[in-house]
Amino acid sequence: MSVPANSLAYPCPISMKMYKEQRQRLGESLHRAFPEGGHAAVLQAASEVPINSTDCNYLFVQESYYYYLFGTELPEAYGAVLADGTGIVFIARLPAEYATWMGPLPTPEGVKAQLAMDEVHYVDEMEKVLKAHGVHTAEVMHGTNSDSGLHTLQAKLPEGSSLTQSTSFLFNTLTAQRGYKTAMEAEVLKYVCKVSSDAHVTVMRMAKPGMSQHHLESTFLHEVYYKGGCRRVSYTCICATGHHGATLHYPDNNALIENGSMALLDMGGNYRGYAADITCSFPVNGKFTEAQKIIYNAVLDAHDKVMRAMKPGVQWVDMHLLAIRTICTHLIAAGLLKGDLDVMMKKEIMQYFQPHGLGHLIGMDVHDVGGYMEGYPERPTKKDCCRLRTARPVEEGMYMTIEPGCYFNAALLAMAKQNSEVVEHLNLEKIEEFADFGGVRIESDVLVTKDGVVNYTVVPRTVEEIERTMAGAEFSKDIEVYHN
Amino acid sequence: MSVPANSLAYPCPISMKMYKEQRQRLGESLHRAFPEGGHAAVLQAASEVPINSTDCNYLFVQESYYYYLFGTELPEAYGAVLADGTGIVFIARLPAEYATWMGPLPTPEGVKAQLAMDEVHYVDEMEKVLKAHGVHTAEVMHGTNSDSGLHTLQAKLPEGSSLTQSTSFLFNTLTAQRGYKTAMEAEVLKYVCKVSSDAHVTVMRMAKPGMSQHHLESTFLHEVYYKGGCRRVSYTCICATGHHGATLHYPDNNALIENGSMALLDMGGNYRGYAADITCSFPVNGKFTEAQKIIYNAVLDAHDKVMRAMKPGVQWVDMHLLAIRTICTHLIAAGLLKGDLDVMMKKEIMQYFQPHGLGHLIGMDVHDVGGYMEGYPERPTKKDCCRLRTARPVEEGMYMTIEPGCYFNAALLAMAKQNSEVVEHLNLEKIEEFADFGGVRIESDVLVTKDGVVNYTVVPRTVEEIERTMAGAEFSKDIEVYHN
Repeated sequence: MSVPANSLAYPCPISMKMYKEQRQRLGESLHRAFPEGGHAAVLQAASEVPINSTDCNYLFVQESYYYYLFGTELPEAYGAVLADGTGIVFIARLPAEYATWMGPLPTPEGVKAQLAMDEVHYVDEMEKVLKAHGVHTAEVMHGTNSDSGLHTLQAKLPEGSSLTQSTSFLFNTLTAQRGYKTAMEAEVLKYVCKVSSDAHVTVMRMAKPGMSQHHLESTFLHEVYYKGGCRRVSYTCICATGHHGATLHYPDNNALIENGSMALLDMGGNYRGYAADITCSFPVNGKFTEAQKIIYNAVLDAHDKVMRAMKPGVQWVDMHLLAIRTICTHLIAAGLLKGDLDVMMKKEIMQYFQPHGLGHLIGMDVHDVGGYMEGYPERPTKKDCCRLRTARPVEEGMYMTIEPGCYFNAALLAMAKQNSEVVEHLNLEKIEEFADFGGVRIESDVLVTKDGVVNYTVVPRTVEEIERTMAGAEFSKDIEVYHN
Repeated sequence: MSVPANSLAYPCPISMKMYKEQRQRLGESLHRAFPEGGHAAVLQAASEVPINSTDCNYLFVQESYYYYLFGTELPEAYGAVLADGTGIVFIARLPAEYATWMGPLPTPEGVKAQLAMDEVHYVDEMEKVLKAHGVHTAEVMHGTNSDSGLHTLQAKLPEGSSLTQSTSFLFNTLTAQRGYKTAMEAEVLKYVCKVSSDAHVTVMRMAKPGMSQHHLESTFLHEVYYKGGCRRVSYTCICATGHHGATLHYPDNNALIENGSMALLDMGGNYRGYAADITCSFPVNGKFTEAQKIIYNAVLDAHDKVMRAMKPGVQWVDMHLLAIRTICTHLIAAGLLKGDLDVMMKKEIMQYFQPHGLGHLIGMDVHDVGGYMEGYPERPTKKDCCRLRTARPVEEGMYMTIEPGCYFNAALLAMAKQNSEVVEHLNLEKIEEFADFGGVRIESDVLVTKDGVVNYTVVPRTVEEIERTMAGAEFSKDIEVYHN
């Protein structure tokens, strides 16, 4: 159990007004959907998760929809939002002796003050309290995460509850709402992205051949927690070097860092549920070889071209195609691919070199909810686009990663070679030179504005910036704003 | 998924012979229990655990019994041990395209070499392979963790399996076996205890009033991972300062560190499943007050007296009573308690000052299995002993924590005051002076030898050692060996 947010000695206070505004917006949707009244959104907090059958739990992670509305890491609780925006939290009534282990037990009065919540009661009072507010129907979560396929935590009302449960409203409404970041949310996202960017720079500077990859992960974790108050990261760090860079979700981080290899570090802090997701790629010895420059600049060109094209109204699938087409152009120029660009794009050849989408929504979850929703485009079927985590048109207020990449993955190249349509475009001899190269990914987190994007990621990106920073020069850069 | 152990670039290689010996011992038990043959122990590895309904998993933690026998962090696998000690691992057969995300997929040949395993096959071959070895009955796990009350992961054989499943043998046998550490296990435990001790010393030196508690946690996590290869800790760090020290499982670690307060830091690294569990208590400004010395020396005296009394044959409950009696004596001498020692012990008064047991078994799990088993003493009912996690007599080869403590917990003191039998022994005015004190715990990890214990914990313990170390003096000490 964690004390609520505003008692943190951490460096970025979050105003409880942010959550109040989020409840207010949900309340307005409730009012529009049920103008006759009587409906409340009812959500359930996460529970502690034990590690196998041991006596220890994983570090608690609050359920994202719940955290988004109520701003608290208290587990085993419920929350309700009424149509007028009133927020009510219901906390567990714990036996007095738990105070020995947990410290002073949460009380309704204490939690109300800490969360600036309209009302706080015990869970066993939920039915009575909601009815006193004229609620007859609890709108509960019922949906599926379009990335993981997992079902959302559906609020289990007390047994014998006489409230009607409805599963038709809340998931879609709240998923849609989370897709557009408020100004206050944007400040938190900017903060966690800056903390994570700074930690990437520190890691980039300390990385040396002869170290183990785990030295990089440990340093990043320490930087974001010690300096930034991010007790956890948004996902398991990927600290790949050398050929491991071609493994998209490389989880081990325990190999020796070999001189001459590239590092691909995909790491992002998490601050009170808000995620960063940043990838930096660089030569571990601080100096790019010509071969490394070819791949790196191909990916950077794709990254930058997308930055200069992104704005409300453009199609995300088009951004993806722009990126992979750019990388393809570079691979042709460098002699790794041969033939006509348009023909190769038509043959979906880039599925073998960038086997992932250009990016994804990000926010409370690193792969944020709402990628595929009713009323929005479905997943593309083309093989070089089908891994996109969303196909929605770009809209103001969306927060997204832009993360083109280029990899030399043995399994994928083997498949490419077996495809007679594709193999004729491969310069196998040249590609063989990159067998141990691994990969390059360049990933930034951007907020879509009315005419472009703001890139909250502040890390060295050009070959020159990286080489200078790794040689010990100061690094500072303003947040880049694109008016496109 | 993690690659098996011996490819680690971490600082403490673990010989696969350790796991082989552990399988051999289990095989001998199988042979004794089923001299007619045909029985094999069959265990299931842990699965990845998703974080709520997001697209991320918690950092994988292998199931302890499985890890203990097979030494691998591969999830979604099975393992079997035959009566002749033969070890067989069954790995998941994954679709070829997973190689894009996971890197080269594990193969039976590769895993066999990495684990020095007798045989490795795919899970879908398990039935066939076991039958070829003459196995007709799978002995599977079936039991309850006596600390958490959670059920062990019971191997689910493939549907339609014609093997008989038996639940009567494995849990008790393997739980008992894990209670006695081999020489090779002891080396790993010594290693993780040294790494964790060193990290405690680093934290003790850097802690300063005005910092946040999370600075201490972050530093510890970094030290054990960066220097020691402990990717995770054995339990969520407890970085309590001031009155938070009275909260036994203080989980927040986010308050300001106030000058004049005590720190109580309970933190232990985990190396390939093997746990350390160490608590250091010290004044955050590096200098004990007289009041702090009273409580600290009371607990240290209890800790040291137990160290000098522990040996095979003594009763753990007696060790616990020795510790709390010692602390009680000091509290009387300091005027916090008044009256006759024996009377107070009879009234079980120490339940209000040390509301936990003296210590617990430790090994693969931080609260290791086997505390309460068939054929061993049951949990004591006396209120000052009932929280003991084991009541077994002490035996050679056991690995245990010794962790007396003394706390000023508001909830407990309120209960004490309501007890007319107890309140007459409380010097309320004096105790009130300690209202914000928090607590002191001193926790070491010891291996029971043939005539005493070896204390693998190497940290400053006396008031003088702590003050000197915090003032910047070198700290070094040999592992202490007690012949009692």
